[in-house]
Amino acid sequence: MEKETSRVEAFSDGVFAIALTLLVLGIKVPETAGTFTNETLYLALLKLWPSLFAFVLSFFTVLIMWINHHGFFKYLKKISPAFLYANGFLLLMVTFINFPTYVLANSLNTPAINTAAAFYCGTIVLVNVAYNLLWFTSAYRRRLLRDEVSDALIFKIRNAYLVSFGIYLAAFAVSFYFPLTGLLICISLWVLWLFLDYEKKVKSK
Amino acid sequence: MEKETSRVEAFSDGVFAIALTLLVLGIKVPETAGTFTNETLYLALLKLWPSLFAFVLSFFTVLIMWINHHGFFKYLKKISPAFLYANGFLLLMVTFINFPTYVLANSLNTPAINTAAAFYCGTIVLVNVAYNLLWFTSAYRRRLLRDEVSDALIFKIRNAYLVSFGIYLAAFAVSFYFPLTGLLICISLWVLWLFLDYEKKVKSK
Amino acid sequence: MEKETSRVEAFSDGVFAIALTLLVLGIKVPETAGTFTNETLYLALLKLWPSLFAFVLSFFTVLIMWINHHGFFKYLKKISPAFLYANGFLLLMVTFINFPTYVLANSLNTPAINTAAAFYCGTIVLVNVAYNLLWFTSAYRRRLLRDEVSDALIFKIRNAYLVSFGIYLAAFAVSFYFPLTGLLICISLWVLWLFLDYEKKVKSK
Amino acid sequence: MEKETSRVEAFSDGVFAIALTLLVLGIKVPETAGTFTNETLYLALLKLWPSLFAFVLSFFTVLIMWINHHGFFKYLKKISPAFLYANGFLLLMVTFINFPTYVLANSLNTPAINTAAAFYCGTIVLVNVAYNLLWFTSAYRRRLLRDEVSDALIFKIRNAYLVSFGIYLAAFAVSFYFPLTGLLICISLWVLWLFLDYEKKVKSK
Repeated sequence: MEKETSRVEAFSDGVFAIALTLLVLGIKVPETAGTFTNETLYLALLKLWPSLFAFVLSFFTVLIMWINHHGFFKYLKKISPAFLYANGFLLLMVTFINFPTYVLANSLNTPAINTAAAFYCGTIVLVNVAYNLLWFTSAYRRRLLRDEVSDALIFKIRNAYLVSFGIYLAAFAVSFYFPLTGLLICISLWVLWLFLDYEKKVKSK
Repeated sequence: MEKETSRVEAFSDGVFAIALTLLVLGIKVPETAGTFTNETLYLALLKLWPSLFAFVLSFFTVLIMWINHHGFFKYLKKISPAFLYANGFLLLMVTFINFPTYVLANSLNTPAINTAAAFYCGTIVLVNVAYNLLWFTSAYRRRLLRDEVSDALIFKIRNAYLVSFGIYLAAFAVSFYFPLTGLLICISLWVLWLFLDYEKKVKSK
Repeated sequence: MEKETSRVEAFSDGVFAIALTLLVLGIKVPETAGTFTNETLYLALLKLWPSLFAFVLSFFTVLIMWINHHGFFKYLKKISPAFLYANGFLLLMVTFINFPTYVLANSLNTPAINTAAAFYCGTIVLVNVAYNLLWFTSAYRRRLLRDEVSDALIFKIRNAYLVSFGIYLAAFAVSFYFPLTGLLICISLWVLWLFLDYEKKVKSK
Repeated sequence: MEKETSRVEAFSDGVFAIALTLLVLGIKVPETAGTFTNETLYLALLKLWPSLFAFVLSFFTVLIMWINHHGFFKYLKKISPAFLYANGFLLLMVTFINFPTYVLANSLNTPAINTAAAFYCGTIVLVNVAYNLLWFTSAYRRRLLRDEVSDALIFKIRNAYLVSFGIYLAAFAVSFYFPLTGLLICISLWVLWLFLDYEKKVKSK
């Protein structure tokens, strides 16, 4: 059983690592390359800031998701079929995140920014749904959890996932009107996950 | 020997994870990006539904294939050269699946849907052939199987692979005339694999 | 030391798996997709046979290289800096093989086939050089080899690598004039590697 | 704790392996493929030398970074949140290196070479910053280091990272005026890392 859990974790780690690295393919060298002078190449690189912003944003989002996912597995004593589906849905979203990142990079300094930001935030909402499902399939009646996980910790984690769902949903709604604010809300939740991860580490000592 | 089997499994896991994640590269942002307004980007994203459908379809197909492949290795006590070739053929098909997925995404709402669906279902038939070969090289005279695998289970698994071969072949034939029905048959077989996987888990207890 | 060797092997396995899977990106859907009928898509897919041939050719080449590389590590008791460089050069070539594959796919049924086949065979020559270096850094004065590796086996492996170098070089020369014959020689050497691998397995019992 | 460290190392290894292999996608077959003769394809391949140069340059840069990163983990007894962020920043840069490589490949024999080389060297400066941060978070008050790491070794490694920061910064400045000299300085530092790695290995015996 232990081995089974490790395998699913290793496979998930692989998908996270690949999805993370593929993000760089979204930064495209301007097509007229080859006809540049030093000045025009310099200006062309500066103009790529939306791609760089989107790349860094999604890189850290996926990285923090990985840290979180990884912290998750430390509570598990085994996995169930339902957990496998929830995890599959999460991996689908992790992989998919490449696409809204690319759309965002292409729209950040254009009039289409609202739709692009809403698409990005909407994807993050679905990521959050996947984490909620993952937690639910694990923690419901403590089915997959190790004995040393305290009820207080379960309560705290469940709340963090539920509350963050509301906040991400708000970010999604906001992003239709104030796209940058919506993205900023998504970024600011990184702090929550890192804090939660830290707390979990302290608790588990 | 044990270590050898783990290594082949780990390598195969890697190929599965990469093939799965590369699928997202098939979802292409419309080329006129940069000239979009919020409305036109929204419409352009909606128009991408064939790409999204093909992505989700192949993602879960490959994921279930991985779960199945992974369940497979639990029966093995060692591997043989013939098994390695069969596994190599399977990995070839797992990798290849990216291409028919992309063709399907580009043809789903066009008059070329029949050819695209038949190409997709035909690929799945070959995937199934690979699984049949994998099982044959493992189970023939119980050559590579652990002792605890019962004859009844061998019989059941062999039948599942053989019967599903017939069904996939039928889906392939049907898809020339009714492309969506063909794809639906392929999807509905997911249930079989998941059920079989579940049963195997119960049996192995 | 044991752990060190495993790590290098795992990293190499990763590069092999990714290089293998990236090959599928070389099969490109025709650009006029979206305007196809069932007939024209069917014809367009048929026309892709050079891409499919190049994909299958390189997939099995890399797969057999992996099996061989993997068999290699079973003889090693440790690794050295020189071995690391030779292995790095091999990984460079494994990764690079994607490019001549793509060139070959684009030239197989064109007048440029001689250059494309020579480029492909030339790449394989360099791959073979990398294997020779790998073997030399390992087997010279038995520096990195386990004690159970017999002198007869060392002799046999060294000869296989040296002789195959000559054959690959001949294939390279031939391919300038008879491109398909050159490729066929490269393919036919697969048998040698698989046979050698099999023999090694028998010997190590 | 030991397991935790292994996991972060395995995940990082994955990102290194993928970033390394993706580099090959930067070598593009000329777009007019299909209309080539043997002579024009030969000339077209020769003209790709900037892509090949950039590929080999970045491949070995990332490979040596991996060897170094990997040597790093041997000193660690545990990891901290700060270390995780520093490592995340390093992985971001490792992934990002694909992009300046591609820009360099497209500009090496054009008037835009100064900007491209400066962009490349600037990226390497940031990679070096990431290594300095990694070392600082590990070695500050010996927080994460194993007991057997001597003070003399800590001193030597810290100095190597600090001094190399100065040299990379100089390469960055130089590359604006003498692009090839700037790149050559970056390459020549490979020797330092390999030497340091070797020394570390000797020390740890």
